[in-house]
Formats: sequence, C-alpha cells, structure tokens
Amino acid sequence: MSEVRTKAALAKEAAAVMNRMTTVQKNEALLKMADALIAEQAILLEANEKDIRNGEANGTSSSLLDRLKLNPSRIEAIAEGLRQVVELEDPIGTVLETFDRPNGLHIEKHRVPLGVIGMIYEARPNVTVDAAGLCLKTGNPVVLRGGSAALETNRAIVGVMRQALAETALPVEALQMIEDSNRSSVDEMLKLNGLIDVIIPRGGASLIQNVVQNATVPVIETGAGICHTYVDASALPKMAEEIALNAKVQRPSVCNSMETLIVHSGYAEKHLSSMAERFREKNVELRGCERAQKLVSWVRSASEQDYATEYNDYILNIKIVDDLDEALAHIRRFGTMHSECIVTESQENAARFLAEVDAATVYHNASTRFTDGFEFGFGAEIGISTQKLHARGPMGLPALTSTKYVVKGSGQVRG
Amino acid sequence: MSEVRTKAALAKEAAAVMNRMTTVQKNEALLKMADALIAEQAILLEANEKDIRNGEANGTSSSLLDRLKLNPSRIEAIAEGLRQVVELEDPIGTVLETFDRPNGLHIEKHRVPLGVIGMIYEARPNVTVDAAGLCLKTGNPVVLRGGSAALETNRAIVGVMRQALAETALPVEALQMIEDSNRSSVDEMLKLNGLIDVIIPRGGASLIQNVVQNATVPVIETGAGICHTYVDASALPKMAEEIALNAKVQRPSVCNSMETLIVHSGYAEKHLSSMAERFREKNVELRGCERAQKLVSWVRSASEQDYATEYNDYILNIKIVDDLDEALAHIRRFGTMHSECIVTESQENAARFLAEVDAATVYHNASTRFTDGFEFGFGAEIGISTQKLHARGPMGLPALTSTKYVVKGSGQVRG
Repeated sequence: MSEVRTKAALAKEAAAVMNRMTTVQKNEALLKMADALIAEQAILLEANEKDIRNGEANGTSSSLLDRLKLNPSRIEAIAEGLRQVVELEDPIGTVLETFDRPNGLHIEKHRVPLGVIGMIYEARPNVTVDAAGLCLKTGNPVVLRGGSAALETNRAIVGVMRQALAETALPVEALQMIEDSNRSSVDEMLKLNGLIDVIIPRGGASLIQNVVQNATVPVIETGAGICHTYVDASALPKMAEEIALNAKVQRPSVCNSMETLIVHSGYAEKHLSSMAERFREKNVELRGCERAQKLVSWVRSASEQDYATEYNDYILNIKIVDDLDEALAHIRRFGTMHSECIVTESQENAARFLAEVDAATVYHNASTRFTDGFEFGFGAEIGISTQKLHARGPMGLPALTSTKYVVKGSGQVRG
Repeated sequence: MSEVRTKAALAKEAAAVMNRMTTVQKNEALLKMADALIAEQAILLEANEKDIRNGEANGTSSSLLDRLKLNPSRIEAIAEGLRQVVELEDPIGTVLETFDRPNGLHIEKHRVPLGVIGMIYEARPNVTVDAAGLCLKTGNPVVLRGGSAALETNRAIVGVMRQALAETALPVEALQMIEDSNRSSVDEMLKLNGLIDVIIPRGGASLIQNVVQNATVPVIETGAGICHTYVDASALPKMAEEIALNAKVQRPSVCNSMETLIVHSGYAEKHLSSMAERFREKNVELRGCERAQKLVSWVRSASEQDYATEYNDYILNIKIVDDLDEALAHIRRFGTMHSECIVTESQENAARFLAEVDAATVYHNASTRFTDGFEFGFGAEIGISTQKLHARGPMGLPALTSTKYVVKGSGQVRG
C-alpha cells in the first residue's frame, strides 16, 4: 500500500477515538505539543538548516527562503499559536438545535468533527503547526502534505509533535505527514474518497486550481483574491486615500489586498491625481483605463488580462466609471468573490453595494485587508474560503466541524 | 456556445436579480407556477403520454413507468407541493451573527443564496417542480437536467413554469432546463466552475458516483444508504421487531431503509426465529452469517459483497455479534454514514452508539425510515446529504443558502 493510503487509513481509524476526546484532553495535547516544540527546538533548527541549504543550492528566492527560515523567536511564536488555540472555545459537542415531533421523536442536531482533513500547502512551516492544532482541537485527524522545500523542517516538526501526542490521551495516528514529495502523492490524496473527508488547499493559484480540478474528495477552496475598492462620488478624499493605500500596500502579497481601484468619474476628476501621488510615493506601478490615463499621465494602459490578474505585488489597476452600476458590473466580471469595498458617504449606494456584490466579505468604508480570522476575532484561521459551500470567508474552528442528527424514540415506526 | 453553457450563463446573470427578490415576490411566483401547472395540465398530460409511449416502446420497467406517469391528481399533488414551499420561512436575509471589533468595525453574517444550482436527476417529474420551487424560494437560479425518459414531460412542465414566471418579478432565466439528453451534457455541467456554484445529484448510486467522480464544481452528495439496525441484548422484542420490520419493508426502495440487521447473540438465541418469521410473512429474503444460519435454517449465506450492497429490495442481511463493539465495527466498515439505529433498553449502550456512530442521523429506538425532510418537520427537502461538508442529513431550505460577511466601518485601515 502506498504511503498516502497507509497514512490516511491510520488517520481514518484514529477518527473514532478522536470523536470521543474531551476538550480537556485535546487542550492538554496541544499544550504538550507546544512545550515539545520549544524543548526540542535544536532538532527543528538543524532540520530547517538542511532545507535552507538545499534551497540555496537550488537557487530558491530569498523571499521564499525567508518564509521557510526558523529561528528561536519564530519557534516561540509558532508554539504560542498552539497555546492560543487552547484558549478558543471547543465547538464540538454543542447542540445546535433540538426539536420534538408530534409522534414523540426527540431530535437534536450536534456539532461533530468533519473527519479526516487533508491539508495541501506550500513551504511555510508555521502552517504545519497551525493546521495540526486547529484540526486536533476540533477532533479531526489530519493528513499534512506540505511543499518539498520544507520537507526536513516539517518532518522534524511532525516528529516532535507526534512524540508529544504519545504522552497524551489523543491517538498519535491522528497526526500524519506525507513525506513523498512527488506530485503523485498529492494526486493520490485528492482521490481518497472514504479515507479523507475534506481537502483544504492553501497556497498559490496553481496549487489551488490543481486541487479544485482534480479532487473527487470534497474541497474547501481558499485563497484566490482579485479584490476591488470602489471610491464613489461622495467619498471623503482623505478616508478614500487611506483605505485604498492600506488595501494595496500594507501587505501586497496576500489574498485580501486590492488589485483594482475603481473610481467614480466625479471623484476622479477632482482627486485622482492626489491619490496617484500617494501610490507613487509607495512605488506602486499604476495601470488604468483610458480615462485614468488622461487624468494621470504616468498611468500605463491596463489590458483585460490585467483586470483578471491577482498581482500580489506593487501593481494596481485603475478603472474610472460613471456610476455604481458600472462598478458593480466590473466587480461581477473580474472579482473572485473574496473581499470587495465601497468608500462612500451615500448610505443608499453603500446599501446597494453591500447587498448586491456577491463576495465572502463586503466592506463599507474599511480596508479589505481585514478579511482575516484574527481580525474578525476568531482567534485563528485555517484559511479563507472563496467558495459558497460549507464555509465562506475567514474560517475559524466551526468551519472544521460537521453536524449529526441524534434521534431518540420509544419504538416509533413510519406509517 | 453549447446549450449547457448558454443556459448556465443565463442563469448566472439572473442570480444578481434573484438576490434582490423579496419573500413576497418569490412566494407570488411560486403560487403562479402552481396555478399554471393546474391550468395547463392538458399540455402536461399530453407530453407525459409521449414519454410513457416511448418508455413502453423501449421496454421500460413498469415500476419506472409508474414513477414517470402523470395524472390530474398527481399534478394536483405536485402543485400543492409548491404551495407548501410558499408557507415555509424564507431563510434569505436573516442576520445569523453580529459582532463589533475593538477598532469599531461592525461585522454581520448574512444568509444569502448559494448561487446557480445544477440539479442532475432521474425520471421523476415531481423532482423538476420540487427543485424549481425550493431553489427559487431561496433566491437561487436552477439548471435542471432530468433523465431522458421524462424529457417531454419535463419540457412541458418547465415551459409552463417559465410562462408563469414571465408574469412575475422573478427573472424567467432563473429557471433553466437542459434538453440535450446525451451524457455529455451532464459531463459539461459538472465542469462549469464559475457559472454553476453547486451540483446536487439525485438518483441511483451510479448517477451519484458519476457526479462525485467527475465534477470540478462543488457537489452535495446525496442518497446512497446502507443503513443498519442493531438489536442489542436488552432490546424489547416487540419494539425491536416493529422497528426492524418497518425499516426494511415499509418502503424498501428508498435510501433510508435497512439493508442489514445486526443482532446481539443473546437476543438472537431467544428471539431471532420469531423475528425471521415476521420477515418471511413479508416475503423478505434473508441472508446471514453462519451463526444466523444456525439459528434460522432457511437463511442463506451472506457474502462480504452482500454486506456492502444497497439492495433497495426485499432482501435483508443478518449479522450476529457478541457485543456493541462488534456492531460498531461492522457499521464502520459497511455503513455509508446515512442512518443507523440501535434498539436497546441500556441507556449506556444507547449513549455510546449515538456518540460513536459516524452517520448523518443516528437513532435510538426508532425506525431509520424517519430520515426525511418532511418527517423532520422541514416541510420539504431537496435531498439527503451523505457528505459531511455544508449539509448533512435531510436538507431543508437553509441547506440551499450560503453566507456573506457585511462589514461596516468609518475609515478603518489595518496597522
């Protein structure tokens, strides 16, 4: 049997035991894992050093190497993340609804674990620990498949965490890591219906599209974000500038940053040049429609392809529109249903925008950068769902649960 | 452009309008559709007559022809189903949660439509009307792809309902039907990411497996049910017999009927022969393990394959076990996570069974036949989900919704 099937089967077997674990038992395990990561940090740093050396030898980019790099303070932060998950309320076991039927049946809807979760992600070692913590806290075994660039680091991390689990009530086999770094191991995970209950991909657009296109196991799609900010005619210029600037440059590499600024023509004629100046100060390259180019001479021409691109970089499209309808149509065409914002003083336009834009999160007068589990107060997040099924937007612990109907009778049969 | 893509694109365009429809507008449309089905029943009966004649010519089984057949009282029942959906509470627009963040952001979680729903089903014309009613009531455009055996009937039904929609506020294009009865039209629907938001299959195991194996659009898997009833040592014999008999023979063709009866050896030694007699009276063929065969001479031998088969017929497997753990292991191995029952007077065993069996619906002392939207009091159901993502068990109107975070600020940016 392949590594993937063997480990997924072990995880599946552990699911029944995980189902029975109490909140106290799960929290104890997470704290043991956190302590072990600190206590065994020499092992982690040594393994990480190998990944870094391999990366350097393979010409990996310095930004990727930086994301991969561990040091004592990063390990402390990762362990602290686990401790924070301990503080979160355990959603498992909650009774969401109860109802009694005329025939005397008593029906309860309970929150239960999702089952075996397959995580497919890239080279950030902190995802290994975050995902393990969030899945185990919600009673779910997890099969981790991280990027090959972090293989040594992830193996060391998972080894340390499994050793810690061995001293707890939780089954060690609830935490699995696929070491086969061939693409075929991902392909196999995607088709393991019956052993893996849900796949959650985290990473760039190509990783996510591979999962969505090839999985037969149910998927929670995350991540891709072509986010817009629409500055309406009545927007306050200072507020509009601060929100737009923040949405673009506070952290351009992430999914909730802005890719296209849509500006009402009335606002643009008076204020676009000053807004453009703010972006120039931050070294943001501007591309735009003809009308934007007329108002700001150094704006380059934006193609259809540009409007459809998630730059994740210091590049911004500008599109001038004559009314809210034109803005809504642009978002409908190019948005990825992630995060969309209107800056306006018109309550009527705000209400229409919030109601009509079909996205996980819609904003009135605030930066799209707030689409985040921590910013929403969830305390942690396993990802940001961009699909409409099951969970939408930042996913906290409840997104890692399912439900079960428990029916209590006294001999009822159907007539 | 193909028929499928063209119609899905029209449905997608209608989604924005559907989003804005009020409960009153949606209910008016459903009532108009119900009235039209009655008023135009001559058209429906004529079309249905063609399907029946085609079916007879093709040697279609009489049970399938019966399910396909329309008559005035069946049309009345179908129209009445629509009127019942009008009476149901509209989940759309409900604010599920609100919270305020320390930075002053006000966040609301709203219920919104799922988007374009693709229904793929077999030859029952009532599904055409039910699905249209449930989807439109929840603000979702729907693309219907029914079985070819009902093509003429479905075309007439959808034609009449679209004509009725034309006199309402709802967009006619929110109701689409694929007339291409080639398998390729199904395959195309399954890959229409971006135009279809969710696929819901309803029908036999092969239809559902085709959808699960080939869809790249998110799917809500429904239907397959290998359901067990476990009769524990302390079960009351009369109650156990009534529940087991009901679970098997009240309607053997449906997914929530029982396929395997698991019996504690202590109970079996005293009561299995009397229980077997009850099944014999109902012409149920019994297959079983060696121990069951020893206790009841006319029980045939059950193979592993038998335990893994959804008979949907007057056939039942019997498996004798020595304790609850053995029963749980059998269910873990062969169950499809649909509906599972324990009959026992032991509160301890009942509690363990209800907690440990991983199924959409678990029963103590009641027939598995109750897993049904109407029996649960949902007033209607679009299907019974056997997956853990999004919805599990009987799906009422809320299962046809998604959520959206609405965030209201006053210029907040992320620091």
